[in-house]
Amino acid sequence: MESVTSVGHDAVEVITAKRDHAELSGSQIDWVIDAYTRGAVADEQMSALAMAILLNGMNRREVSRWTNAMIESGERMDFSALSRPTADKHSTGGVGDKITLPLAPLVAACGVAVPQLSGRGLGHTGGTLDKLESIPGWQASLTNEAMMDQLEDVGAVICAAGSGLAPADKKLYALRDVTGTIEAISLIASSIMSKKIAEGTGALVLDVKVGSGAFMKDLDRAQELAETMVALGTDAGVTTVALLTNMSTPLGLTAGNALEVRESVEVLAGGGPDDVVELTLALAREMLAAAGVDDVDPADRLRDGSAMDAWRRMIAAQGGDPEARLPVARESTVVRADSDGVLTSLDAMAVGMAAWRLGAGRARKEDPVQAGAGVEIHAKPGAAVTQGQPLLTLHSDDPKRFERALSSLEGGWEVSAERLADTPDELVLGRVTA
Amino acid sequence: MESVTSVGHDAVEVITAKRDHAELSGSQIDWVIDAYTRGAVADEQMSALAMAILLNGMNRREVSRWTNAMIESGERMDFSALSRPTADKHSTGGVGDKITLPLAPLVAACGVAVPQLSGRGLGHTGGTLDKLESIPGWQASLTNEAMMDQLEDVGAVICAAGSGLAPADKKLYALRDVTGTIEAISLIASSIMSKKIAEGTGALVLDVKVGSGAFMKDLDRAQELAETMVALGTDAGVTTVALLTNMSTPLGLTAGNALEVRESVEVLAGGGPDDVVELTLALAREMLAAAGVDDVDPADRLRDGSAMDAWRRMIAAQGGDPEARLPVARESTVVRADSDGVLTSLDAMAVGMAAWRLGAGRARKEDPVQAGAGVEIHAKPGAAVTQGQPLLTLHSDDPKRFERALSSLEGGWEVSAERLADTPDELVLGRVTA
Repeated sequence: MESVTSVGHDAVEVITAKRDHAELSGSQIDWVIDAYTRGAVADEQMSALAMAILLNGMNRREVSRWTNAMIESGERMDFSALSRPTADKHSTGGVGDKITLPLAPLVAACGVAVPQLSGRGLGHTGGTLDKLESIPGWQASLTNEAMMDQLEDVGAVICAAGSGLAPADKKLYALRDVTGTIEAISLIASSIMSKKIAEGTGALVLDVKVGSGAFMKDLDRAQELAETMVALGTDAGVTTVALLTNMSTPLGLTAGNALEVRESVEVLAGGGPDDVVELTLALAREMLAAAGVDDVDPADRLRDGSAMDAWRRMIAAQGGDPEARLPVARESTVVRADSDGVLTSLDAMAVGMAAWRLGAGRARKEDPVQAGAGVEIHAKPGAAVTQGQPLLTLHSDDPKRFERALSSLEGGWEVSAERLADTPDELVLGRVTA
Repeated sequence: MESVTSVGHDAVEVITAKRDHAELSGSQIDWVIDAYTRGAVADEQMSALAMAILLNGMNRREVSRWTNAMIESGERMDFSALSRPTADKHSTGGVGDKITLPLAPLVAACGVAVPQLSGRGLGHTGGTLDKLESIPGWQASLTNEAMMDQLEDVGAVICAAGSGLAPADKKLYALRDVTGTIEAISLIASSIMSKKIAEGTGALVLDVKVGSGAFMKDLDRAQELAETMVALGTDAGVTTVALLTNMSTPLGLTAGNALEVRESVEVLAGGGPDDVVELTLALAREMLAAAGVDDVDPADRLRDGSAMDAWRRMIAAQGGDPEARLPVARESTVVRADSDGVLTSLDAMAVGMAAWRLGAGRARKEDPVQAGAGVEIHAKPGAAVTQGQPLLTLHSDDPKRFERALSSLEGGWEVSAERLADTPDELVLGRVTA
């Protein structure tokens, strides 16, 4: 049963150490991440290690080292030559979460540059790039030079992350996805933070979603994830703050690509749903504070049109036409209240699944998405409704999709004859700092 | 984060169930073993599942089903057409453990057929086939028909297991070996028992080794492994008994291929070291009882030469010359006592590692072994020794190997000036029945 001794480390040694509850050494962590990226540690070895980490955990020192090793696997961007400070925001993903769209130009309008590297959606939560790609002409890919120029000129950029950032994470995430090892908090935290730290932002605000439509269903685990990520950012010298926010019901009144762009533009125009405005401003204030800017109120920048100006310039700089008519789905169907009363719940996961099944999201990375597909919400929890009143409108290019979308909404909303005494849920549930 | 629903099961569902401490259903177990054997479940998925099983365990129902699914992955032998009952023995592996060699012909001489499918050695414990292959002309491979004929005619066969038995286990064992998941008791037990049950024996005696030279270092884990295996055999309708036996010091006075054949022949001739004779008889009595034969004393069959006759016929039936001179290594060196006193310890692992490094074992499956290499033991723990007296003779064809072999013996034996009051360790430490 003895394995041949090799110089340095070997995979079985590292796996068995974590399996037997040992703390991994810095040298073991550096070696295993580098060897995995090079292909010297096999997928079946890394997945066994990931399961041991999921079940036995890693402490703060181990997760910091793990994150750093993933950053070191690729390039690291540097925005220190910019004339203004930088701040970025990351959301763990929610239904109707279009906040990045109004937030990036808003923060730019306040004097802080936002270098936002985003991804596409998978499953029931939409992707920021998918949403922006519904704008005619808009391109997600930028060279590093074009990104730097746009940051200096416009102050905000939302673009696709290049493959050069944390390649170890890209490989490891794909592996975890098929091996039941996504749910390890230390691995979720290091995955997110390795990319965000490699991206070179000076400050980072994390929006950790909690509730039925979020990856984290309960507050305790969300709190643990937020604390782990704030610690990782702090250890890497990035000012990091996290908000824990409610994802039991969708954010705003839309879930779907073009639908969410339209709503984001409403917010930038000074309107839009209360919850989207509230969260956009809360995150903007955190980003400004983390970047050291304390003399601007972002609400003013919504009111005076400067955030909308930044949006138009940001979209145009990447080839998009901010005045173009957004795509609309070919077909729609309406879900109506089945009785008089109060809408007591509208489940985020049910709406997210419906939008996904309507064509707004994808089941596999290579699937296309429909720009116009999604769900429009006409009543949010707490609203009084009458029998037959429209609650939701479902949009899709393909009417065959309505049946499965409707089935995912079954039990996803409730109208009660008596108004409940409960106060509505708070939007911001907690805040985590270093 | 939702995976696409598929008919039946998918790998992530099974992995996350065990990860989250659920009991796997029979359908999940059957599916995952079959899909893994077919290649529809990937190595990286099975290794994550193996780690989850190692850390979270399987209950008796799960392990029985897992074992059965591995048996169903291949062919199953059937010896019910033989004119006599069958019994087999499996050892979990020890240093100097040549017991199969005298045991199989001895039990055959008592009227019970022994269909012993064996393997080659890896690491510090030798393999039965490697030992027999040191006999000029002896061939390990037999067709099923030749095996059946030899069992009817001679009553004992020791040969290589064909690739048709439990192919799922073969694939899974190779995976566990490189992913730090060997040590799961449920997987060790199901690996051993799937092959032994598929082999078709009517009764099975397990020799579970405990101590420094064994895979199981402590009695509690050895007991747990023995109980798990006895339960699996019982569930499959095979009368199964386990002995827990001491492996803190080597069995007998030799560790090495031809050296152990020579010692086995001494036992069959009515001589040989006491511990080898004692364990051979103990296991023979268990095999006979398990096979329902209670009117023969195997000690008589050693004395009257019928066991030796069965040995000669067994070796000759596979092309070996039982009278041929056995290979002797080209070089040797002697380890001597460094003081007068009592030899208080001779560590099994140290001797096993020395024999391995001398060339008796292999580090990789494809390595060759030396027939003559190994360690001869001149004094066992408890013996009075004088300074300069030979304790061990090391044999190898390659004198460059002596240095590393000697270094593995450092600290592996001790001579004390005062005889210790401790009684010598018992050879048989426990017995487990259904």
